[in-house]
Amino acid sequence: MEVIKGGLCAVKGVRAYGIKEGNKGLALIEGEGKASGMYTTNKIKAAPVRFTKKQLEKGRISAIIANSGCANSFTGERGMRNAEKMAELASSFLGVDKEEVAVLSTGPIGAQLDMGLIEGQLGEVVKGLTSGAEGSTAAAKAIMTTDTFHKETAISIDTGNDERVVIGGIVKGSGMIAPHMTTATMLAFIYTDASLDDEVLNGSLKDAVENSFNMTVVDGDMSTNDTVLLVATGKSGKISEADFKAGLTFVCQELAKLIARDGEGATKFIEVRVKGAPSIADAREVARSIVRSPLVKSAIFGERPDLVCGRIIAAIGSSVIAEDGSFSGISIRLKGEKEVLAVKNGEFLDLSDSERTVMKGEEIFIDVDMGTGVEAEATAWGCDLTYDYVRINASMH
Amino acid sequence: MEVIKGGLCAVKGVRAYGIKEGNKGLALIEGEGKASGMYTTNKIKAAPVRFTKKQLEKGRISAIIANSGCANSFTGERGMRNAEKMAELASSFLGVDKEEVAVLSTGPIGAQLDMGLIEGQLGEVVKGLTSGAEGSTAAAKAIMTTDTFHKETAISIDTGNDERVVIGGIVKGSGMIAPHMTTATMLAFIYTDASLDDEVLNGSLKDAVENSFNMTVVDGDMSTNDTVLLVATGKSGKISEADFKAGLTFVCQELAKLIARDGEGATKFIEVRVKGAPSIADAREVARSIVRSPLVKSAIFGERPDLVCGRIIAAIGSSVIAEDGSFSGISIRLKGEKEVLAVKNGEFLDLSDSERTVMKGEEIFIDVDMGTGVEAEATAWGCDLTYDYVRINASMH
Repeated sequence: MEVIKGGLCAVKGVRAYGIKEGNKGLALIEGEGKASGMYTTNKIKAAPVRFTKKQLEKGRISAIIANSGCANSFTGERGMRNAEKMAELASSFLGVDKEEVAVLSTGPIGAQLDMGLIEGQLGEVVKGLTSGAEGSTAAAKAIMTTDTFHKETAISIDTGNDERVVIGGIVKGSGMIAPHMTTATMLAFIYTDASLDDEVLNGSLKDAVENSFNMTVVDGDMSTNDTVLLVATGKSGKISEADFKAGLTFVCQELAKLIARDGEGATKFIEVRVKGAPSIADAREVARSIVRSPLVKSAIFGERPDLVCGRIIAAIGSSVIAEDGSFSGISIRLKGEKEVLAVKNGEFLDLSDSERTVMKGEEIFIDVDMGTGVEAEATAWGCDLTYDYVRINASMH
Repeated sequence: MEVIKGGLCAVKGVRAYGIKEGNKGLALIEGEGKASGMYTTNKIKAAPVRFTKKQLEKGRISAIIANSGCANSFTGERGMRNAEKMAELASSFLGVDKEEVAVLSTGPIGAQLDMGLIEGQLGEVVKGLTSGAEGSTAAAKAIMTTDTFHKETAISIDTGNDERVVIGGIVKGSGMIAPHMTTATMLAFIYTDASLDDEVLNGSLKDAVENSFNMTVVDGDMSTNDTVLLVATGKSGKISEADFKAGLTFVCQELAKLIARDGEGATKFIEVRVKGAPSIADAREVARSIVRSPLVKSAIFGERPDLVCGRIIAAIGSSVIAEDGSFSGISIRLKGEKEVLAVKNGEFLDLSDSERTVMKGEEIFIDVDMGTGVEAEATAWGCDLTYDYVRINASMH
């Protein structure tokens, strides 16, 4: 497996482009193939989510059209008609079946789309469609909202048959990122040129999302619009299920970590690894609970290892599923610019003045060993809670 | 029912006092009677919580000793011995059975108690014990941590038999306030002089806590130390179960609202009332989800009614339990210094410039009608998310 340039457009059979005017962007991705999707578990789903879920029932799409600046969520029947209209526009501009167009939106909830603007932008975007790397970048930029940088990645995998397959994707997401199902105000579009069975396509996506986007938390809020789409163009050869799963999980984790790094107002990226939990489910809940805790997040912002450990203990206890167990053997290792064992087998260690600076640096790793001896681990990603998170979301720019 | 002065000490048979030196405080409450307790659901419980739970198994206590500045949580066997030692000290100073002493602690997790300090403070506190109102206030002040004001209340209820009974309580809590079971780093001590059956005592406490502390959210974190204790001295007469429940719920709600008003860094108190939900359980989940959402809380800090409604919709959809229902008939009314209908039967209304100032003021009321026509409602309390929440919890004082 090798990381390559080109994002989405490194995948054979994919062209993309996008533009942005003010906070209104439009991205178009052309690429025919088998498709699988995962959607927000929010009970209030935006019109495009409901529309796209239905479009994908046949398991095949030819294009994705996605706008930023309006979520088309909680917009009633008019919202649904507009989502359909977006599919029709893409269909007629590209000459593809309108039933094979996925439609996504991201932005504030409650407002109707400006269909005139979208139609105008679409004409320009179609002209820009390209299989060059700049197409993937333009599409990734077009769907940004509070994101401060665009997010894309691609890998090439040796299939062992003198052939390589590519998996490439773009994602947007910065705030309203929660740990249930696909995260939140998160749109991820992933393409591969591998030839895949339906079962492998769907199963791999579920696994990869579970271990990537679903383990990423910015603020614990859950959007009405989250969607992850995976499309396999089949323009390259077959690949083993294990190799494809590993590759897809890598791509999804890279994209998920980019979201955490770009968390609203974040100054530090946080990776929490929990091992020795009573079960995998416990490990997952505990890791997410730590990375979600406002108290843990603000102690990391304040670079206070003395405060963070007690708050991690509280987060562990509030999230662990297993009924019994004293959890008296917990150890916690912190790593920033240096590495320190802060809690050892249930005992808080006295940190030296030098060790107290452990949380300086832009990347903080927290290793928790719950001390059960069971081999159950999970990793979650997030960011610190800062003044800027409040400023951005109070919109006091 | 009438609100009266005196806090805890308005209850017949109760004396209290407390002192604070720096961030280390000690409170002592003397008052014999039937007792009922509710404790954090955090799987990691502090030593005093486990100790007190056991002490209360006989359903009777004579005194409460509580310290601030150290949670005595995650402190191993030494922590347990220290909790027991605190009970012994109170027992010998007061001449009460050591098995009838409840022990509580609040403060940072992971450090051991300074038993020398506690013993020294206790001598002074015992001298100050009084049934005057100043005793309740001193005890309430002694258990404060990040609280900015002390919290106490009392009511007097006419029993209908030419007699009145009193319910009075103190509480501390400001951060780490979560909505599961009793909230968090929250200690509430409530006394009544009513004569109560065990069943009424326990049942009333459960109901009252469900509708008060469990509906209060500051940050969604859950402490290892939360405890609510109710003690009935029986020094006054009998009261109907309904009247007592109503009175106790009122007292608990008043104390819970004081916690929300004193939420770490809060500039605004928030009350969310949800009605027309598919069920009471839905109403409760939705109300708490709204008041817990960092996005809703920061939009309220920013006084942005345009942003808050979409975020409320997302919070509703992420928390509602009922499987189906389009929830397309939601209405949202906002009230600050003025009152505005912002969402009507599923449609976001255009707000005038004047209406956009609706969220000015120190108290924000959000009324959500989920539009199902079912009579299921719940109320939750919380506060906005501000720069100061981050500052306090990053400890960048």
